[in-house]
Amino acid sequence: MTAVAVLGVGVSRLGKQPERGLTDLAAEAIQAAFADAEVSSVDAVWVGTVFGPAGVAQRVLRSVGITSVPVITVENACASGTTAFIEACEAVRTGRYGRVLALGIEQMSAVFEGPIIPEKTDPEGVAGLAMPAMYAMSASRYLHEGAVTMNQLAAVAVKNRAHAQHNPLAPFNRQITVDEVLASRMIADPLTLLQCCPTSDGAAAAVLGAATGGPEEVVVRGAAIRSGRVWDQSSPHVWGYDIVRETAEEALASGGLDSIGDIDLVELHDAFTIGEIVTTEAIGLAPLGQGGEAIERGDTALGGKTPVNTSGGLLSRGHPLGATGLAQIAEVSWQLRGKAGGRQVPGARLGLVETMGGGVSVLDGNSCVITILEKK
Amino acid sequence: MTAVAVLGVGVSRLGKQPERGLTDLAAEAIQAAFADAEVSSVDAVWVGTVFGPAGVAQRVLRSVGITSVPVITVENACASGTTAFIEACEAVRTGRYGRVLALGIEQMSAVFEGPIIPEKTDPEGVAGLAMPAMYAMSASRYLHEGAVTMNQLAAVAVKNRAHAQHNPLAPFNRQITVDEVLASRMIADPLTLLQCCPTSDGAAAAVLGAATGGPEEVVVRGAAIRSGRVWDQSSPHVWGYDIVRETAEEALASGGLDSIGDIDLVELHDAFTIGEIVTTEAIGLAPLGQGGEAIERGDTALGGKTPVNTSGGLLSRGHPLGATGLAQIAEVSWQLRGKAGGRQVPGARLGLVETMGGGVSVLDGNSCVITILEKK
Repeated sequence: MTAVAVLGVGVSRLGKQPERGLTDLAAEAIQAAFADAEVSSVDAVWVGTVFGPAGVAQRVLRSVGITSVPVITVENACASGTTAFIEACEAVRTGRYGRVLALGIEQMSAVFEGPIIPEKTDPEGVAGLAMPAMYAMSASRYLHEGAVTMNQLAAVAVKNRAHAQHNPLAPFNRQITVDEVLASRMIADPLTLLQCCPTSDGAAAAVLGAATGGPEEVVVRGAAIRSGRVWDQSSPHVWGYDIVRETAEEALASGGLDSIGDIDLVELHDAFTIGEIVTTEAIGLAPLGQGGEAIERGDTALGGKTPVNTSGGLLSRGHPLGATGLAQIAEVSWQLRGKAGGRQVPGARLGLVETMGGGVSVLDGNSCVITILEKK
Repeated sequence: MTAVAVLGVGVSRLGKQPERGLTDLAAEAIQAAFADAEVSSVDAVWVGTVFGPAGVAQRVLRSVGITSVPVITVENACASGTTAFIEACEAVRTGRYGRVLALGIEQMSAVFEGPIIPEKTDPEGVAGLAMPAMYAMSASRYLHEGAVTMNQLAAVAVKNRAHAQHNPLAPFNRQITVDEVLASRMIADPLTLLQCCPTSDGAAAAVLGAATGGPEEVVVRGAAIRSGRVWDQSSPHVWGYDIVRETAEEALASGGLDSIGDIDLVELHDAFTIGEIVTTEAIGLAPLGQGGEAIERGDTALGGKTPVNTSGGLLSRGHPLGATGLAQIAEVSWQLRGKAGGRQVPGARLGLVETMGGGVSVLDGNSCVITILEKK
């Protein structure tokens, strides 16, 4: 099997941009990734999007001159971008294609005025269990069990905004305080506005190819994808914990890594503050029920033991669904190459990217993709 | 690399079934495929759909007890089902997963009252160039050039309906005549109603695994996928011809086959009568401009040299987009196993499945997936 390298990455301007179409957003990301990789063509493309219209992939690719190569569009909820990435990796790893583009695109503003409206065939969603409510259930349980405090929830948003001030790509970079987070408008009790990722438009891309062993090369050390783990009233942990834990274990094992302790930085799915806390625990950065404490203590802040979401995360960068995973891949790639500016993690060699997609409804399970990147 | 076998196939009831949801349709197809393969679980799933709502894959899979395995939903226009199939094949071939389900699902009646409405971001579609019009352009050019006659166009519909009378799965099986086809309501001049595939609801599935060499085993002999070949006013051939020709050549070569002459039967994308004629030429069953003659002569009818669309094709089975490619795979699998009843091609050993997906617009190119199945 071929060792896979991330040859280049690119991210478009992010944030609500209803005046721009997916073609324009995608072109910006692809051109940046091609320039970064110093290539002008690829042999195949995987495109991740959740709400992009059928056939949009070919249209956006033609705009940058990519025609006559296999194009496969994938949807895997919020993990669509990293699903495109993992499929592109697999194609290079197995020698199916030599150089592959993984592209993530989403223009939320073209589909929704505000938050995602549950699909009419999603019974729990229609009954009110939209994404903010699902995360709010986890937060309520954690608060009830004493596993988190309101201040710890807010500390996630404050930390990620502190990181975002060093990331020119994060549209939400005004510094905020715990009091301000808790005083912002209630969205789904106990989650306030500043604890919820903004809806967003954007595109992100990565070019993958065979590793050549160069000194600055970023390679894919491990990867895992899981889906459809059912969560219901009989589950021992909150929504998402188990699938993330199992996927993390599989990803670490696939890279021959013993523990998360080897990882220098993490980009993870902080769609809501409680999501980052639960994921911090699920991937092993803190014991179960102690993620909030670890974050409040600064363990996962820049300068801490294992910085999490140096980009500012979904809370500051926004969450253009299909693009999110590849924006995470871009952040970790930049970090490993030492190109992360004021948010650089010194000497970072191993970075982990976690994306969790909700199933449409609670009962339908969910999906998780985790990849581990390395600079040798 | 592992030789890949089609362990089992299943197709739901087809036709407009607005009272049934995707979950119900999918369950019928999956249960049939599992029973056929004599298995009760798989290690991963690829799902093809065009208009299924985001996240629908996990919901329909949970209904049949498939949880906690990787699930990847793919969209590739009308070739979405065979894209799921080719990705599932690749996963088995490379040893990524042992046993994989490829599932195609579509409920057109839940999305459109009649034909597919072009996406608002598709400039040609909005201007009137919907799918019937695109195919009508090809038919007009063929008629102008003397490459086809009105009767030859109609003969495609008559032939496929004749085949469909032997296929219990084809909802449209009333026998028709050339005169009746030509006298039916005009949809897009010169294509009349009976020359256009019906919109449809349905699901189809295939279970893939490592070949064991059993005597009745159907294996994947070759496969190819192409996308995004731009077609415009400078193209030498009509829409779709070039990409189908190139994909067919690649698929035959990948299976070590010299020519289409080795193939015993073909299921191909007869979304409109002219589509079957152009594809018959593109894959090499007739010289360029002589596909209509070949069909009128009976070369591709049951009992002819190379029967095409023994199932009745999209024209008789309907075209539930994501399910179509896997329904084609099922038909060829049954034929190779000698289980095709009154439509059986005697001694069939090699069958080819072709699906062409339109790009959203003419200029955005299109996609094609071709697979070749074999009974050793």
